[in-house]
Amino acid sequence: MSFVAPIQDMRFVMRELADLEGVLALPGLEEVTEDIVDAVLEENARFVQDVLAPLNRKADESPAQWEDGRVTTSPGFREAFSTFAQGGWQGLPHPTELGGQGFPKLVSAAVGENMNAANLAFSLCPLLTDGVIEALSTVGSREQQQRFIPPMLEGRWTGTMNLTEPQAGSDLALISTRAVPQEDGSYRISGQKIFITYGEHDMAENIVHLVLARTPNAPEGVKGISLFIVPKFVVDENGVLGPRNDVWCASLEHKLGIHGSPTAVLLYGSGKGEVGEGAVGCLVGEENRGLEYMFIMMNAARYAVGVQGVAIAERALQQAESYARERIQGRALEGADGPVSIAHHPDVQRMLLTMRGLTEGARALAAIAAAARDRALWHPDEAQRVRDKALYEYLVPVVKGFSTEMSVEVASLGLQVHGGMGYIEETGAAQYYRDARILPIYEGTTAIQANDFIGRKVLRDGGAVVAALAAQMRETISGLQQAPAGDAHADGMALIGRQLAMAVDAFEQASRYVLDNARERISAVFLGSVPYLQLAGVVLSGWQLARAAQASLAYLSGDGADAFHRRKLGTAVFYAAHVLPRAQALAASIIEGNVAQSYARDVVLPQ
Amino acid sequence: MSFVAPIQDMRFVMRELADLEGVLALPGLEEVTEDIVDAVLEENARFVQDVLAPLNRKADESPAQWEDGRVTTSPGFREAFSTFAQGGWQGLPHPTELGGQGFPKLVSAAVGENMNAANLAFSLCPLLTDGVIEALSTVGSREQQQRFIPPMLEGRWTGTMNLTEPQAGSDLALISTRAVPQEDGSYRISGQKIFITYGEHDMAENIVHLVLARTPNAPEGVKGISLFIVPKFVVDENGVLGPRNDVWCASLEHKLGIHGSPTAVLLYGSGKGEVGEGAVGCLVGEENRGLEYMFIMMNAARYAVGVQGVAIAERALQQAESYARERIQGRALEGADGPVSIAHHPDVQRMLLTMRGLTEGARALAAIAAAARDRALWHPDEAQRVRDKALYEYLVPVVKGFSTEMSVEVASLGLQVHGGMGYIEETGAAQYYRDARILPIYEGTTAIQANDFIGRKVLRDGGAVVAALAAQMRETISGLQQAPAGDAHADGMALIGRQLAMAVDAFEQASRYVLDNARERISAVFLGSVPYLQLAGVVLSGWQLARAAQASLAYLSGDGADAFHRRKLGTAVFYAAHVLPRAQALAASIIEGNVAQSYARDVVLPQ
Repeated sequence: MSFVAPIQDMRFVMRELADLEGVLALPGLEEVTEDIVDAVLEENARFVQDVLAPLNRKADESPAQWEDGRVTTSPGFREAFSTFAQGGWQGLPHPTELGGQGFPKLVSAAVGENMNAANLAFSLCPLLTDGVIEALSTVGSREQQQRFIPPMLEGRWTGTMNLTEPQAGSDLALISTRAVPQEDGSYRISGQKIFITYGEHDMAENIVHLVLARTPNAPEGVKGISLFIVPKFVVDENGVLGPRNDVWCASLEHKLGIHGSPTAVLLYGSGKGEVGEGAVGCLVGEENRGLEYMFIMMNAARYAVGVQGVAIAERALQQAESYARERIQGRALEGADGPVSIAHHPDVQRMLLTMRGLTEGARALAAIAAAARDRALWHPDEAQRVRDKALYEYLVPVVKGFSTEMSVEVASLGLQVHGGMGYIEETGAAQYYRDARILPIYEGTTAIQANDFIGRKVLRDGGAVVAALAAQMRETISGLQQAPAGDAHADGMALIGRQLAMAVDAFEQASRYVLDNARERISAVFLGSVPYLQLAGVVLSGWQLARAAQASLAYLSGDGADAFHRRKLGTAVFYAAHVLPRAQALAASIIEGNVAQSYARDVVLPQ
Repeated sequence: MSFVAPIQDMRFVMRELADLEGVLALPGLEEVTEDIVDAVLEENARFVQDVLAPLNRKADESPAQWEDGRVTTSPGFREAFSTFAQGGWQGLPHPTELGGQGFPKLVSAAVGENMNAANLAFSLCPLLTDGVIEALSTVGSREQQQRFIPPMLEGRWTGTMNLTEPQAGSDLALISTRAVPQEDGSYRISGQKIFITYGEHDMAENIVHLVLARTPNAPEGVKGISLFIVPKFVVDENGVLGPRNDVWCASLEHKLGIHGSPTAVLLYGSGKGEVGEGAVGCLVGEENRGLEYMFIMMNAARYAVGVQGVAIAERALQQAESYARERIQGRALEGADGPVSIAHHPDVQRMLLTMRGLTEGARALAAIAAAARDRALWHPDEAQRVRDKALYEYLVPVVKGFSTEMSVEVASLGLQVHGGMGYIEETGAAQYYRDARILPIYEGTTAIQANDFIGRKVLRDGGAVVAALAAQMRETISGLQQAPAGDAHADGMALIGRQLAMAVDAFEQASRYVLDNARERISAVFLGSVPYLQLAGVVLSGWQLARAAQASLAYLSGDGADAFHRRKLGTAVFYAAHVLPRAQALAASIIEGNVAQSYARDVVLPQ
C-alpha cells in the first residue's frame, strides 16, 4: 500500500503550533524561508514516496544477508542510498560551516519522520550517521571534523554508535572493550560490541564507528569510559582510504522486525585486518569523558527515535484508514441497508481515531520540542536560550518514551482494524507491529527514559519546567472555556477543556508526589516512573491537540469549513474523550506507589 | 526456556474463589473428587511440560508445510498428538454418555490453559475439535453423534469450523458457499473457505469439517445459512473411511505467529476428489438454522480462546520473571553496591507485577465463569441454573475480549523486560508477542465480543446481571474495609478496598450510560463498546484478585507467612494500584461518547 507524506499536517503543526515564523526569524536561520521549507517538504515527499516506500515490504521479506563478514543489504537499498546521498538529505540538519545545509530542527524532524514512515529499516542508517556527525561536530577536534564529517554529509560514508556489549546493555558501567594507547598517539581497540545498527553493510565506501572503550588504568564504572573513532577502513590525513581496519562483523541478529536494518555483532581486535592486531582508533576529546560525549549523540538519537515512533504510527494509520474505507463488511448501525465499508462501524472509528489522535498529538509535541531546540541554539537572548534548552531537554525523554510506546499501541490497533487479514504477513499491517516494537527499547528503554526524566529533568530543577508547562496549559484551558456557547463546536471545545483540566490536575498531583517523595521513598517513586513519563506524554500531547483545535476553530468559523480543519478539531475532541482520561489512571498508580512498592519485592523476589 | 504448569495457583483459584467443592458436589459430578482433580492436574502438567512445551520454539521456526494439497505439521507434532490421544485428553470435558470423561468445565479449563501455555499452535487443534464435539453433541442427530464423536474423542479424527470466506469475515450474512440437496438426502457443497485452523494436516486419519453454507432458495442474510458436516474422507454408516471427499487445501497462510498451526484455504467442490463434483456433506439439524448452531460452538470456542489469552500471558510471565532474576545489570536504587539482577529495578518490578496481576486476575475470572457454566448444567434448582446460565453468558465475551487483549499487553511487557534481547527471535519472548496477537481477532474480534456483550448480555436483561455483580462487589468491598487497622496488611487491604470501590463506581456509571443511551444514541454507545467491555474485565478481574487477597490474608494471619500467599496478596495490591484505576479512564471515555461520536464521521469519512 502506497504511502503519502503527511505534509499538510506538518505545515499546520509548524505554523500554528510551533511558531515556524519565529524560528525562521532567528539570527543565523534567516536564509531559510517558509517557501524554502515548503519546497523541501515537497521534494522530500517525492523522494520518500517514490524511492523509499516501495522498498519497505520487500526488505522485510528479504533481510540483509551476512556472508563471511560481508553484509549485503536488502534489494534496492544500495541504489536508494545513492539517491539519498545525491539529494543531499544527510546534510539537511547540520551546520553550514561543516558543509551541511543548516536547516532548523523543526524542519529536519519532519523530513526525518517522512523518511522513517516510508522505510524505517532504511532510515536507521542516516539516523545513526546524524548522531555521529552531531557528536563529532560538538566534541571532535578540528582535524577530526574535517577528516570525517564531509564524507558523511555527502553520503559516501556512514556512522554507527557502539555502546552495548553482551554484559553491558542499559548499564554502561559494565563495558569492558579495551583501548591501548600507541606511541603515535593512536589507540588499539579490542572487544566485542553487539546490537550495532548498520555496523556492516554495502551502501557506502566506509563506516565511521564511534566506540566506547576503556584505556588501561581507567577508573572503574562509567567514569572510566572513553570515546574513539574507529573507521572500517583507516583514513589518512588527506581523507584517503587506507588498509582494512581490524573490526569485523561476526554475525547479524535474527530480529522480530526492521529486517532491512542489519544489526551487527562487531569484533574489534581479532587480528584479521590489514593493520595487525587491534583496531586502529583515535580518541575523541579527553580520556574518561566518553559517556558524557555519547550523551550528546544520544539526546539527538533519542529525539530521532521518538520521531520514528510518530513515523511508524502515521504509516500504520494510513494503511488502516485505507483498508477500513475499502473493506465492505456488515451493516451500518443506523440507517443504511446494504453492506457498508467497515469505516462506518463505531469501533473501527474508535480505533482509527485513537490512532490518529496519538499520532498527531505526538507529532505536535515533537515539533514543539524541535522549536525549543532551535531557539536554544539561535535565540539572541541568553535567558531565553537557557529556558528553551531546559524545555528541550525536559521534552526529549517524553518524545522518546511516549511516542515509541504509543507507536506500538497504534500499530497494534492498525493490525486489529484489518481483522484476520491483519495477521497475514502479506497485508503489511503486521510488519508495522513488528517494526514498531524495537522503538521503546533501543537508544534507552522507556525505563531509562523515565529515570532520566525524573532524575535529571524533574528533580534537578525542582519542578521548574513542570510548573511553567502547567501554567501554560492552564492558559490554554481558560481559552477553551471561553468558547461562545451558541457556537456549533461549543460542546466539543467544552469537552476538550473539561478533560484537559482534569488531566492537568492529575499531572500536577503526580508531579507533586514525585517531587515530595523522590528522596525518601525513591523505590516507590520509581515504581511509577514509566507511568509518570506516560502521564506527561498523554497530557502534553493532549495540550497540543487542544491548541490545534483552537487554531482550527478560527478557520471553521467563517464559510470555509474545510475537511482538514474539521478533522483536526474532531481528532482533538476524540483524544480528549478517549486518551486524556488515562491521565487520571496513571496519576492514581503513581500516587499509590508507597503501599504498592512495599509488596513489590515479595512478589518478584520471593524468599 | 522450560515451562512449569501453574497448578498451585489453579488449585487456589478453584478452591478459594470458584467453589470447587460446591461444583464437585453437584448431582452428576459426584464421581469427580478433589483428589482426582489434583491427579489430573499433575498428570496434565507432566504431559504439557515434557511433551508439548519443548516443541513450541521449533514449531515457530519450522511452520507447517504445504505441498500439493498435503500439509506436513511441524517437527514432533504428529508424535505429540498421538501421545495426547492416548492420554485421553480430548475426552476430558465431554459427556460420559458419548464416551467422554465428563469433567466439569472448571477443571477442563485449567487443563486447556496448561496445554495452550505449553504450545498454543499445537493446542488449537484439540480446541477446535472440542467445539465440533460440543456442537454435534448438542444439535447433531443421534446417528451423527455415534458416527463422528467417538473417533474425535479418541484422537483419531479432528474437527474444524468453516465460517469465513474472503468476502465474509465478521459479517456472516455475506457467506456464499452453496449446498445442493441430493436424492439420497446428502448435500453437495461448493465454495471457498479461508482461515481454517488445522483445515488440513497429517496428525489424524480424518478431519470433520463443520461448514456454513446456503441451500438453493435459502433466504438472504444470516437466516439462510445452514450447517453441514463435511468429512475429509467420506465415512460410511459403520464409521469406516471411504473415498477422499472433494475438499482440498489450496494453500496455507503466512502468518505473524502461531506458525505451528496450519491456517488453510479450503476449496469445496473443485472436482478433484473421489466422489465426483462437490464435497459430500450432511445437514446438521434443520436448514437455515446454521448460525444459531454455530453459536453453540462459538460460545465454547470463545471461552476457550479467552483461556488461551491467560495461557500465553502465563508463559510470557514465566519467561520474563526467569530472565529478570538471572540478568545482572545496573545497581540497586537503595543500598547494595554491586550489580544486581534486573528484578531489583522498580520498573522491571512494575512490568512483572502488571503481567502477573493481569494474568492471575483473568485466570480467576475465567474460573468463575467455568463454575457458573457447571452450575448452569448440573445444579438441581432450576432458578439457580437460569441465574448461572445468564452469568456464564455474560462473562463469555469478557473472558474472550479482556483476556485476549490483556495477553497482547502482557506479551509486550514480557518482551520489554528482556530489553534488546527481547527483540532477538531466539530469546523466545518475541514469539509470545506474535502468537498472542491473533487472540483478539479470531473467534470474533474484540469489537464483535463487545457488540455481543452490550447487545445480548447487558441490554437484553436490562442490566440485571450487572446489578447483581455490582452488589456482590460491594459486599467484598465492605469486607475489605473491615480489616483491623493494626494489622500488618491493613494498608494493603485498604488500598484494594479504596481502588475497587472507585472502579465499581465507574463500572456502574458507565453501565447506566449504556443502558440509558443504547436505544437513542446507539452509535455513541458503540463508540465506547470495547472500552466498556474492557472496563468490565478490569473491574471483575480486580474483584477476583481482591477476593484472593482476602483468602490469602487468612493464611498469613498465623505464623505460616508463606511465599505463595504473600505473593497473592502483593499481586492484588499492585493490581489495585496500577490496573484498577484504568476503570475511571475507561468510564470517562464511554460517558463522553455523545460529543465524541458527533465528530467521528468527520474524521474517518471526510466528505
